[in-house]
Order: sequence, then C-alpha cells, then structure tokens
Amino acid sequence: MREGVGEKVVPDRATIIFFSGDLDKALVGFNLATTAAAMGWETTLFFTFWGLNIIKKKRQVSKALGIKRKLFKLLNRGGAERLALSKFHLLGLGTGMIKKLMKETRMPSVEELLSICKGMGVKIIACTTTMALEGLTRDNLIEEVDEFAGAATYLSYAKDSKVNLFI
Amino acid sequence: MREGVGEKVVPDRATIIFFSGDLDKALVGFNLATTAAAMGWETTLFFTFWGLNIIKKKRQVSKALGIKRKLFKLLNRGGAERLALSKFHLLGLGTGMIKKLMKETRMPSVEELLSICKGMGVKIIACTTTMALEGLTRDNLIEEVDEFAGAATYLSYAKDSKVNLFI
Amino acid sequence: MREGVGEKVVPDRATIIFFSGDLDKALVGFNLATTAAAMGWETTLFFTFWGLNIIKKKRQVSKALGIKRKLFKLLNRGGAERLALSKFHLLGLGTGMIKKLMKETRMPSVEELLSICKGMGVKIIACTTTMALEGLTRDNLIEEVDEFAGAATYLSYAKDSKVNLFI
Repeated sequence: MREGVGEKVVPDRATIIFFSGDLDKALVGFNLATTAAAMGWETTLFFTFWGLNIIKKKRQVSKALGIKRKLFKLLNRGGAERLALSKFHLLGLGTGMIKKLMKETRMPSVEELLSICKGMGVKIIACTTTMALEGLTRDNLIEEVDEFAGAATYLSYAKDSKVNLFI
Repeated sequence: MREGVGEKVVPDRATIIFFSGDLDKALVGFNLATTAAAMGWETTLFFTFWGLNIIKKKRQVSKALGIKRKLFKLLNRGGAERLALSKFHLLGLGTGMIKKLMKETRMPSVEELLSICKGMGVKIIACTTTMALEGLTRDNLIEEVDEFAGAATYLSYAKDSKVNLFI
Repeated sequence: MREGVGEKVVPDRATIIFFSGDLDKALVGFNLATTAAAMGWETTLFFTFWGLNIIKKKRQVSKALGIKRKLFKLLNRGGAERLALSKFHLLGLGTGMIKKLMKETRMPSVEELLSICKGMGVKIIACTTTMALEGLTRDNLIEEVDEFAGAATYLSYAKDSKVNLFI
C-alpha cells in the first residue's frame, strides 16, 4: 500500500504476461502472483500465445477450421496437466521428475495454483489475438477466465502497475 | 497520458528488449509495440543478442573476421523472414504453419510489423555490444534503425517508462 | 537520481530476475546490472529456478535426498563455467564458440561479471523456494550471495524500482 497526503490509499499492482506454456515458468509466475496477492497487491495475469495452453480446458472440441489449424491444435494441446519443462524435455525425464519433487516438497500443482489465484482475487485475462490465431472460442478455455481482451487492455493494466513481467 | 497540477502533459512510455530472435516472441513484441504506439505511448524497442537477427538485412556481406566469427554468422543469419518459432522447430512444421495461419487470419508479417512500427514513430535501437561481439557494422542492419547504443542508453529510456519488458 | 522539492535524493533502482541459466541471457543480464550499478542505480539480482545454477559452487557435496533429487542435481549441475547457450547447443558448437568470441573481443566471463557486480554493490539474492525444491543448502551456493529469500522479498525490492526485468 502507498499513502500520500490527502490521497486515497491505492493498492500496489502487478501484471504478469504468461507467454510461455512451460511448467517451470508457469510455476514461477504463479508463485509471484499468489505472493503479490497475499501482500494485498491487485494482480493481473495475461495469458498469450503458448501461455494460453495453461488455461485451456483439458479436452477441447475441435471445430472444423482447416487442416493446418487442426495440426497446430494437435501439437499445442492444452490443459495445465500437460505443461512440460523448458529444459530436459527430450530426455522425457524432467517433467515427471519435477512433478514428483513438487509433490514430495508439498508444492501445489499448476491446477491448484490457478485455483488459489482465483480465490485470492487475481484477475485472469485470455489474449483474444491468440484465440483468433488458433481458432479458439471462450468455451475452449477454463471457467476461471475473468476477461477476454487484447494488448490495449493489457497496457491499461500495466500502466499503473509497479511490477510488470513477461515470462 | 497523465496530467498533474501545473505540469506539462507527458506521454506514457514503454520499452521492450527484443533478446529473442524467435518468430512467436517477435510477433507478441510487435503487437504490444504497435498497440502502445496507437495509444499515444512513446515506444522504444531495443534489439540485442538473437533479437538483432530481426533487424539484419537479408543478405549480409561477410567481412574477413576470422573463422569462428564467420561460423557464428552462418548459424545466426539474419533477416526477419528467417525467424523460427521457439517451439516445434525440430519438426520443421511449426514455422511454416504459423506463417500460413498468420496469412489466413490476416495478421501482418514481421517485416510489415517493423514497417508499421516505424510509421507510428516507434524508436528502434540496435545493441552495439552485440554488434561488436558478432563483428557487425551499421551496413549489416536494416535502414529502419534509429539509434546504435548500449545498455546505458536502454536504461535511460526505461527509467521513465511505465512498462518495461524483456522478451 | 531523481530530485524532488524538499525530498531526499533517492537513487534509481532496478531488479532483474535470473530465471534462465543460459549463458546468453546471463551475459545480457549482467551487462544490464553492471551498467545500472555504474550509473549509480541500486541493483538487485534475484536468482531462481535454472538461474540458481549461475550462483552454485562448482563442486557440490551431494546430500542423501533420494534418487529423483539426485538425478535432478546431476542434470542441473551448477557453476557459472557450465552455462550453455539457449540456442545451438545441440551442435555443441555454440557455447565454446561464443566463449572464445567473448575472449577475443575482451568481454568479461560470467565469473568475472559476478565478481564485478559484487564489487559495484549489486545485491545478489538466492531464491529459497528453488533451494528447497532442489534440496540445496547455503553451502551449495557461492559466497557472493547477500540474501536468501523468496518472492515476497523480491516484490518488496521491485516495488520501488524503475526497471524490473525477468530474463
């Protein structure tokens, strides 16, 4: 919180652009988001490009949108359970390993972190430009999404934020 | 725009460091830059490391600078047409596919986005430290570059900006 | 520095989250950090996830923490000498090549940059959440670390900073 003479108390704000759909980056992003929310910050998460995978429903109904878009969707299947690490993925070891480590050290999963975020009032925005590129509708995304918007909306949130990160 | 009592109206500012030379990140970066410029923000793009590939001329005259630097140049050929996706590249599918999708959904190409940026007054800075590392001269970069500068210049722009992103 | 009427002069501040353990990103991060420090900025570096590798001691004593954590450590060996490029690594060419180029163009190494940072008063924070995930103790990290802390501490530094980057 910051206080000025004769001013209303305005909460601190943070925005995080989730560009990446990698598990490791998502974990760090959610950790920052829940910590900021716990400190009373107004926190906004903007999911774009691969990051949109994090907020896709697990099973999507594929619409008839041409073979290329279908192929893209196949490669780019969503659902927070499917996120992989940005490293070590070729070995096929890293992702399973880190999920087990997370369980052992009692770190919440991505699904749990999303749900914790919502419970703490963190705002979740889905990028409409990416949705158009992939041919996705609102029904393809999880119900936790608060807002469907583009870069102009993101900038209007980021403008008054103390911390803006692109992950 | 922000207005204070007895102050001049100062436009909002944004800076984006283009570290990555990946097509997907470049698209998101240019989308944010053109949106900010359209909202009247003074927008500055700082191209460093792999990001310098985005603003290289398509065919460069290779100078005699030793075999290692030549090899690095070969691996690191520039030109916005050559940018690849950060994911799916091994399959050789992703990049062509997304370019076709961009055409189908009438999203402008990276070359077009660079040109749109210039037309909107977005400032384009090339990182001189990266240029020295790669042995590049000003002639190797596209004519749209406004300024050749290093980290100190970047920080002087970022200092008064509301949104600073590293992509 | 910024000066206000009747206010104390407060130095500008910057924070950089070192999420990545890649050589190229580390170089750019340290270049920004040393430049900011040279300009009189209070600069804070927060090493998390793969970035923690940059500030690990070269030889770690492996504690008996179960096979998965040991395997993760093996894949994720620390020490600034081991950092690889985010690109071209499969060829096995890139990292050695860029290190030679750095030497030829007299660019300092990551070890030297860390030491320069310390000498300039840059604050180095190690992420305790990552340390817990990997089962690391303070003894596993280099002596240059100033503080062991989590996301709340990072946000308290970032809150009053003019430039906050995630690399």
